[in-house]
Amino acid sequence: MQEFAEFESLLERPLDQKNVEFQRQGRLKHLISASQLTIPLLEKLCHSADMIRKMNRNPSGNQRLRQLLAHKRAMLYFTQPSTRTFLSFMAACQILGLTCNEVRDPKTSSEVKRESRMDSIRMFSSYFDVIIMRSQIGNFAECCAYLMNDLENQERRSVPIVNAGAGSDEHPTQALLDMYTIIRTFDFDQSSAERASRLDQLREQYPGLTPGPAGKTYAFVGDIGRGRTVRSLATVLAQYPDVRMFFVSPDHEVLNLDAELKDYLKRSGVMVEEFQSLDAEFNGQSLLGQVDCLYMTRIQREHNSEQAESEIAAIDLEPFRLTVERVAQLKTYTPILHPFPRDSVVGEIPTEIDSDSRAMYFRQARNGMWARAALLVHLFDAADTLYLAYRDVMPARG
Amino acid sequence: MQEFAEFESLLERPLDQKNVEFQRQGRLKHLISASQLTIPLLEKLCHSADMIRKMNRNPSGNQRLRQLLAHKRAMLYFTQPSTRTFLSFMAACQILGLTCNEVRDPKTSSEVKRESRMDSIRMFSSYFDVIIMRSQIGNFAECCAYLMNDLENQERRSVPIVNAGAGSDEHPTQALLDMYTIIRTFDFDQSSAERASRLDQLREQYPGLTPGPAGKTYAFVGDIGRGRTVRSLATVLAQYPDVRMFFVSPDHEVLNLDAELKDYLKRSGVMVEEFQSLDAEFNGQSLLGQVDCLYMTRIQREHNSEQAESEIAAIDLEPFRLTVERVAQLKTYTPILHPFPRDSVVGEIPTEIDSDSRAMYFRQARNGMWARAALLVHLFDAADTLYLAYRDVMPARG
Amino acid sequence: MQEFAEFESLLERPLDQKNVEFQRQGRLKHLISASQLTIPLLEKLCHSADMIRKMNRNPSGNQRLRQLLAHKRAMLYFTQPSTRTFLSFMAACQILGLTCNEVRDPKTSSEVKRESRMDSIRMFSSYFDVIIMRSQIGNFAECCAYLMNDLENQERRSVPIVNAGAGSDEHPTQALLDMYTIIRTFDFDQSSAERASRLDQLREQYPGLTPGPAGKTYAFVGDIGRGRTVRSLATVLAQYPDVRMFFVSPDHEVLNLDAELKDYLKRSGVMVEEFQSLDAEFNGQSLLGQVDCLYMTRIQREHNSEQAESEIAAIDLEPFRLTVERVAQLKTYTPILHPFPRDSVVGEIPTEIDSDSRAMYFRQARNGMWARAALLVHLFDAADTLYLAYRDVMPARG
Repeated sequence: MQEFAEFESLLERPLDQKNVEFQRQGRLKHLISASQLTIPLLEKLCHSADMIRKMNRNPSGNQRLRQLLAHKRAMLYFTQPSTRTFLSFMAACQILGLTCNEVRDPKTSSEVKRESRMDSIRMFSSYFDVIIMRSQIGNFAECCAYLMNDLENQERRSVPIVNAGAGSDEHPTQALLDMYTIIRTFDFDQSSAERASRLDQLREQYPGLTPGPAGKTYAFVGDIGRGRTVRSLATVLAQYPDVRMFFVSPDHEVLNLDAELKDYLKRSGVMVEEFQSLDAEFNGQSLLGQVDCLYMTRIQREHNSEQAESEIAAIDLEPFRLTVERVAQLKTYTPILHPFPRDSVVGEIPTEIDSDSRAMYFRQARNGMWARAALLVHLFDAADTLYLAYRDVMPARG
Repeated sequence: MQEFAEFESLLERPLDQKNVEFQRQGRLKHLISASQLTIPLLEKLCHSADMIRKMNRNPSGNQRLRQLLAHKRAMLYFTQPSTRTFLSFMAACQILGLTCNEVRDPKTSSEVKRESRMDSIRMFSSYFDVIIMRSQIGNFAECCAYLMNDLENQERRSVPIVNAGAGSDEHPTQALLDMYTIIRTFDFDQSSAERASRLDQLREQYPGLTPGPAGKTYAFVGDIGRGRTVRSLATVLAQYPDVRMFFVSPDHEVLNLDAELKDYLKRSGVMVEEFQSLDAEFNGQSLLGQVDCLYMTRIQREHNSEQAESEIAAIDLEPFRLTVERVAQLKTYTPILHPFPRDSVVGEIPTEIDSDSRAMYFRQARNGMWARAALLVHLFDAADTLYLAYRDVMPARG
Repeated sequence: MQEFAEFESLLERPLDQKNVEFQRQGRLKHLISASQLTIPLLEKLCHSADMIRKMNRNPSGNQRLRQLLAHKRAMLYFTQPSTRTFLSFMAACQILGLTCNEVRDPKTSSEVKRESRMDSIRMFSSYFDVIIMRSQIGNFAECCAYLMNDLENQERRSVPIVNAGAGSDEHPTQALLDMYTIIRTFDFDQSSAERASRLDQLREQYPGLTPGPAGKTYAFVGDIGRGRTVRSLATVLAQYPDVRMFFVSPDHEVLNLDAELKDYLKRSGVMVEEFQSLDAEFNGQSLLGQVDCLYMTRIQREHNSEQAESEIAAIDLEPFRLTVERVAQLKTYTPILHPFPRDSVVGEIPTEIDSDSRAMYFRQARNGMWARAALLVHLFDAADTLYLAYRDVMPARG
């Protein structure tokens, strides 16, 4: 099977059935959907990301990292424009020594020559060892994964496919880096003897506080209806027990939590609440004071229809903007996250918040490098080699 | 001499006279024309390509390869769009550790500032160690080679020039990779004890079969008149004894074998036959059953004049398309080649052929990396170093 | 402070006050303005550039160089088109093993999403270790340096900013490479025993000749009024004692030496003279015969207003063009420099001059690599490591 159309019949199957085909003996062959990010896999990937991050600070560490995948070549096929995700993947590749190649112009010469998309991808797989792709064509990454699986079955050359955010679909590596940031934050740095007391200290003020993503309240603010990062992250978080989610968005059908996601979350045991302002109360107390993790988003303009555009333009966005006063209501440890870019005109996070210790969005972006590097290590089955290198170069800790 | 116009007088000289200037003591200084690919040179390059290919599979091998030219920097000057050739050269450079730089926009800032083309090229030669170029200006690569020779004569800095397919001229590195694929195929893997019997086995069915490109029948199908890859490859193959060539194309003046090439081939001792269908017979037997190597091509649309376009559009292309039935007539070892991209609308090779063991076009593309890497090793006079590294890291074979 | 507008208030301060903020204990944190290039710093950078240049010729030397900054990643943010400066920085990074990333399209996807410029830069600083920038926005690099300083003060991640020639401002790395070329030339290779006699030989003909940039006559020819390279270089040279400068340009207000620069040079003790032809005399002798260094420039067309364009088009440029006869009047050691590109239509330096031993403009371009590499080594505080590597790998000299 080589034609795009032939693969499309496979797309309609349930996720569970499809995800089996994207793994091999418990390890990912391709990352297509955030639903592949199970808790055990997240733990593995975050552990690798931590090792990579720490090794990178150390001269022998970063040298060993650069040797880890130096024999591999990556193709970054980004025909849908994206500066941030593209550069994050580039940096992740470079940390591990992978050489990078890119195709960014949707009108490549071969398309002019009427080459099929599948031939282009198979050509890339002839030259490169992994294809990281963002395309405007929904499900293109998934179809490419099926092509690679077919080739593998024919004992021909096949390479891993990474979905770097296709169309309006999910954005699984964004969910991965968000989860890495959340897990790092809620780890409260227990590994370090000195910081163990940080959790103890916090417990003096917040007695019920436990480490880990379970048992926490997450607030998602802004463009809930269309933000694929919200959809992907909420789905992943729903795997943890005792999770509560607050969705704070203007009351407009394209911006609200959609029924399907709401239903899915409830069936997964999440307690879901919806609000129309950051100043809302819940159980008689300020919403913001009850949040363990605040996930801000930008109202997307580039996907709006003309009618929606004018309706949304009429909405007062003040209730969905952070202010110094609103931030002051948050718990002292609550991270403020944002998938970025933020809208400098709307100002959902004004720059005056940037120096607050809870502003984690730039660190979150930087975490994207470590998380994506960890994913590449996993896809190339190099986690053991990484661990051995880590043990070699990192000083033992007391 | 620094002006483009001044070099043009040199272009009209016979190939023999020009090729002498592109070499030094039997080694290429520049690769400008497929006519430089003599049989002894092809043997050297294919031997290097084989070593590179095998070393690349081995962890210490690919590490040694990446050190081989790590001190060199390449400029890929591709102002004529080309995804496939560009990426193949990128990958070849990366295998050898060469760092890559690119200029792909024909409107570089310096041209706006009225810099001469020759100054641009000399500027690149100040920063980089080899210039790999594809330009819409016919003979530009050749003129650059003359500039470099002039600089060398003045004891100034000079670097190798590689023609990566200029204008409608020849495409010498395509001919090189095609020849590498043909030589590999007709080697019948004699080096391996196990496979030696493959040639013996084949001889049971095809008693006259000998190893090597000599004494074989090559069929070229499709756009014979304008395909520069056909022109380059046929010219190179014409050096081997007892070669027969079948040209299968629609009966249209722009698509037919042109008189000049036909004449050249005949003078070189090639037996030339022309056909208007893949179902034609020769000597009372099916054409396809007599072919040792089938070279398919795409009818080029992007170079057509308006009149030719409408005439060609009216041609029935069915007789020039592969089908499962036609492939079944081929000998069991006959490789199906295609310089790619193939036309997904015309379908000269439908995707259902891809899983046939004779479909070699994706492997042919991958061979481009090894062959181009071998060329770079040759241009930098590193073949001996390659051989020593190969002996070091590869296990001896029985 | 995160908004572009907020930084603008800082721009109006005197250079002395600003430059203090771009350094740390005598070492540059950022390179924003040519006024930061003090004589002691130039000596350090030129010494490093010399070591890099010599090491690069030696196999173990270039290998050690490629390890020097292999743990660093550079962002080349070139939203103002520039082929030459871009490639020179790329090559400089590659010599030192720095991995390169680029943003060249001024319309990046994030700007479409209304990301502020400062957020983009901070995002780059999350992923990369130095930002080398050329933007059409005047003073953008300077504002970015302030942003980085703010982050450093908050103990957040901060990286060096390099101004690669913003808008019509200064072009400090061009001044650096020009100075490196001048210092190398007027060193008369005294380090080598053999060449010490070159200075002695020259002194037979030019008795007063001394090594170093001091006490020399510099002629600047062509577009004096708008050439930012002339402005930057003249300012730097003005620090040396006993310097004389001849400015040779058409008598037009946009092309002449402007009053502000003239005033600055005079206050710095430079003897300034202006001429309207290369054939002019000074003190009764030919101007060209008195020049120690001849700096040619191109009349810039791309910045002209329509009126200036037509006025300048009417000027006879013959008196500002080099000819074989004019070059013959120069001292035998006088280097001919040009920041390039040269104008192939006007021909301020015809190609027939290229083979003259005084034609140093291509070597000057190549010096840009060594000088920019030295700057990167300095910014990452790796000059000592460079020196140790140099001592290790270079054979001692008698």
